[in-house]
Amino acid sequence: MGHSERIWNRQQASRAARHARAAAALGADLSGKLLPAARIADLLYAVIECGDRVCLEGNNQKQADFLCKALAGLDAARVNRLHMLQSVIALPEHLDVFDKGIAEQLDFSFSGPQATRLARLVSSGRIKIGAIHTYLELFGRYFIDLTPQVALVAAEAADRDGNLYTGPNTEDTPAIVEATAFKSGIVIAQVNRIVDKLPRVDIPADWVDYTVQAPTPNYIEPLFTRDPAQISEIQVLMAMMAIKGIYAEYEVARLNHGIGFDTAAIELILPTYAESLGLRGKIARHWALNPHPALIPAIEAGFVESVHSFGSELGMEDYIRARPDIFFVGPDGSMRSNRAFSQAAGHYACDMFIGSTLQIDLQGNSSTATAGRISGFGGAPNMGADARGRRHASPAWLKAGREAGAGRNGMPRGQKLVVQMVETFREHMQPAFVERLDAWTLAEQAGMALPPVMIYGDDVTHILTEEGIANLLLCRGEEEREQAIRGVAGYTAVGLGRDKRMVENLRDRGVIRRAEDLGIDKRQATRDLLAAKNMKDLVRASGGLYDPPGRFRNW
Amino acid sequence: MGHSERIWNRQQASRAARHARAAAALGADLSGKLLPAARIADLLYAVIECGDRVCLEGNNQKQADFLCKALAGLDAARVNRLHMLQSVIALPEHLDVFDKGIAEQLDFSFSGPQATRLARLVSSGRIKIGAIHTYLELFGRYFIDLTPQVALVAAEAADRDGNLYTGPNTEDTPAIVEATAFKSGIVIAQVNRIVDKLPRVDIPADWVDYTVQAPTPNYIEPLFTRDPAQISEIQVLMAMMAIKGIYAEYEVARLNHGIGFDTAAIELILPTYAESLGLRGKIARHWALNPHPALIPAIEAGFVESVHSFGSELGMEDYIRARPDIFFVGPDGSMRSNRAFSQAAGHYACDMFIGSTLQIDLQGNSSTATAGRISGFGGAPNMGADARGRRHASPAWLKAGREAGAGRNGMPRGQKLVVQMVETFREHMQPAFVERLDAWTLAEQAGMALPPVMIYGDDVTHILTEEGIANLLLCRGEEEREQAIRGVAGYTAVGLGRDKRMVENLRDRGVIRRAEDLGIDKRQATRDLLAAKNMKDLVRASGGLYDPPGRFRNW
Repeated sequence: MGHSERIWNRQQASRAARHARAAAALGADLSGKLLPAARIADLLYAVIECGDRVCLEGNNQKQADFLCKALAGLDAARVNRLHMLQSVIALPEHLDVFDKGIAEQLDFSFSGPQATRLARLVSSGRIKIGAIHTYLELFGRYFIDLTPQVALVAAEAADRDGNLYTGPNTEDTPAIVEATAFKSGIVIAQVNRIVDKLPRVDIPADWVDYTVQAPTPNYIEPLFTRDPAQISEIQVLMAMMAIKGIYAEYEVARLNHGIGFDTAAIELILPTYAESLGLRGKIARHWALNPHPALIPAIEAGFVESVHSFGSELGMEDYIRARPDIFFVGPDGSMRSNRAFSQAAGHYACDMFIGSTLQIDLQGNSSTATAGRISGFGGAPNMGADARGRRHASPAWLKAGREAGAGRNGMPRGQKLVVQMVETFREHMQPAFVERLDAWTLAEQAGMALPPVMIYGDDVTHILTEEGIANLLLCRGEEEREQAIRGVAGYTAVGLGRDKRMVENLRDRGVIRRAEDLGIDKRQATRDLLAAKNMKDLVRASGGLYDPPGRFRNW
Repeated sequence: MGHSERIWNRQQASRAARHARAAAALGADLSGKLLPAARIADLLYAVIECGDRVCLEGNNQKQADFLCKALAGLDAARVNRLHMLQSVIALPEHLDVFDKGIAEQLDFSFSGPQATRLARLVSSGRIKIGAIHTYLELFGRYFIDLTPQVALVAAEAADRDGNLYTGPNTEDTPAIVEATAFKSGIVIAQVNRIVDKLPRVDIPADWVDYTVQAPTPNYIEPLFTRDPAQISEIQVLMAMMAIKGIYAEYEVARLNHGIGFDTAAIELILPTYAESLGLRGKIARHWALNPHPALIPAIEAGFVESVHSFGSELGMEDYIRARPDIFFVGPDGSMRSNRAFSQAAGHYACDMFIGSTLQIDLQGNSSTATAGRISGFGGAPNMGADARGRRHASPAWLKAGREAGAGRNGMPRGQKLVVQMVETFREHMQPAFVERLDAWTLAEQAGMALPPVMIYGDDVTHILTEEGIANLLLCRGEEEREQAIRGVAGYTAVGLGRDKRMVENLRDRGVIRRAEDLGIDKRQATRDLLAAKNMKDLVRASGGLYDPPGRFRNW
């Protein structure tokens, strides 16, 4: 293309045209940036063009559900070939837009509740998946090669100018809006309320094109609430091993916990078991974590110095407001979360990621992918990967690096602790340890370039089961690594296939450690160690400030 | 500590006390959030407490220089033991605060211009370095264990409410302000202008406590401007090898370039050499990059589809404004940069990082650290590390992973391309290839836990010198790797120490490739290939829109 003819402001011109169409369509119904809910379809027809990249705020908690339903209600003859970008596929309507032929391509991070239907739509050719990402990776692409033309986001309130208050579930909104607004895209926000004066401004009005008050408040999923009543004594035992064999051993002060009962058990025995070991003030001080209700007793006991959150958790609002020394709150008293910053912190400023998985293979690769379900990874790959760009030292990081490095080339280097915690058998007696991950089958089914591995074996430092801890950092070579994994795989076929002499040798060297090797009395591993045994205990521990959602109120 | 006695809002109470002291000290001189420049010392005495963590906006371009000078002018008897957090140590006053005993601890990322004095202050015990970080790592810690009590930032303008407009050099401001404002810290912004209506809001007023109009505009360093007149024919040859041997070979579409003449040469031969190879639209399409003036000819030639920037570059304002399809600009037409998002993108959404270094050892570890200078790393460790949390595929990433993976355990994985580009001898005939990095000596001198390596050999995929390209991905084992490095190390002692037969064998296998192996005619490697040969050519290529700073106006 010749120099002189090139037009350099196609995006701004397109933006102006979209605005003009919206103004014409909505007429006097558009008051500044505010339109009535009943006119949302007209707005979407006006500003969305076929083939657009549309970022829909599907977070793993907050959902722009009104805008999603409106999008799914459009006529596919008029709006089609959309390329959807969203962190999480959570609602049926998120997939309806594909089923109806409005959208055809999808780049995302997590699809837990819709994983089965997603797989079905992929195999029937209704959805073409670009890729599955970890959150921060997807946000990064918003600024490089997946910049949205239109963003549909959710906030708690807007003022008349279009400033947004997100409330504690800020989550992905800043990343989405910044990428869209500064590349001549269109930002539409659904809000629960229009007010004269916001408690605080989370997103400046300049960055927002249209606001609409949704008929019902946006949906928020209480994804991180775990009822302590469901924690088993096996999980208590594993939590004890985690604390004594890893947290104390490495002086893990800064960390992230994955979602699930395994890590909830750890949170709940900090004030009892970890306290009895004299670990308060030494471990688990700074967290990149959503406000897990299970963390309340540890906070109250003075274990926790600070928590920065990706999102929030329903029912925790008043408790957070009353604990501003711990959480990040605004001058208005309510929390501001931020998934982008918290993921960056989880990657670079934490010494450990510990989480559960579904399957682990003989190389230590772990995955939550199972055949017939495309579930994605969320934040785990980002936080469960060694941060090779990290350069600041801490005792945990240096010790892990020393253990890994003995025998490598001469340059010393630190390493992040990445712990996979899993019972050897999961639900329905499915073995957690397998020769071959289901991820391979899924990759073939869905035409993926690589099997969808959540955490690669190279990055896993410890595998923790009820049978013990395998420290992969200390393994020299593939064979030792495989035997270390077999050595904690219990009565699964993988565990039964162990070379007993080699496993005993690994145990002698401290590569495998059983509860008794750690000086843990298994008889002590009872639910009595849980600082809260049920939801009511959590409420009590919070001084009545925690207000669990109805579905968790079982007393 | 007992449950009942604990106070949970110490930070909010401290914030309120600081505000009260400021109100008392400034009296009627405080108009809303605005104070006169003459009262800045009084404000700092009122809001800073001894031992505070103070984040000073020293970016690698924009400097909160007025606030820094004010801080350095305080009486150390009244304000001392400060812990300074800042990306970049650029100005003499950044170190004066230590010399004068006002601050004692430092966590930072980069100190280029002050590296020698910094080393001196460290060895004399005036500065205790916490750690040297890559930018995103330091930002992450702002939300975990290095949250500032006070932030001193710089913006282009403020309105009467305290909303800030950063202009194109947004840089670190959003990360710093968010971490401080939402943990009950105090945010003070120096601005160049107070206006009634901002072009746009970059930082909401809610997040800002005090604004002050500085007597002179904040200093901005044109760090990324390279005069094409200084590019040598050796650099043109290396640029040709980079394009033909790496960019084309791996179809590198999304990338970051480090700073320096080596990569400027690549930018300047895209419209000539890469065009002649038919690579337009195939390589170098999406960038995480500051607006390098050297990129203008490639943009004009239609090579570049988008650029997201960490910061801006002086003189590029009008050009950027006229190229909104390429850069991220607001509705007001001026750019918004964002170092946090651009670093995340550089880590996760780019397929390649290519940059220069000062020293490379036999394992491929590279460092810019030299004895007597503590210079830090900036963004290189983040972008020059394999992003192990990445899960989306691209041709470049898959090919690099395949090359690395042959012979590894069975799980396929992609890999980022990390290219270190260096002439075998640098200034004053110092060899770039060494048996032992100066980083070892520096670590001993400064009491660091590990030698300050910029990019670890494990993450480097290619080393490119005037003698050829060593593809470390294809090396099997430490010995091959060492010989591949020796094989491109020219007449340095390391290069002369090569095992000639093994190097020839590596060349036969394509592990080492010389210009002739790539079909590059060295006679073609002349400055005639540069699409702009001097600053004036760059201005001309921009259609007169680029307006270089005075020091670069040599015509």
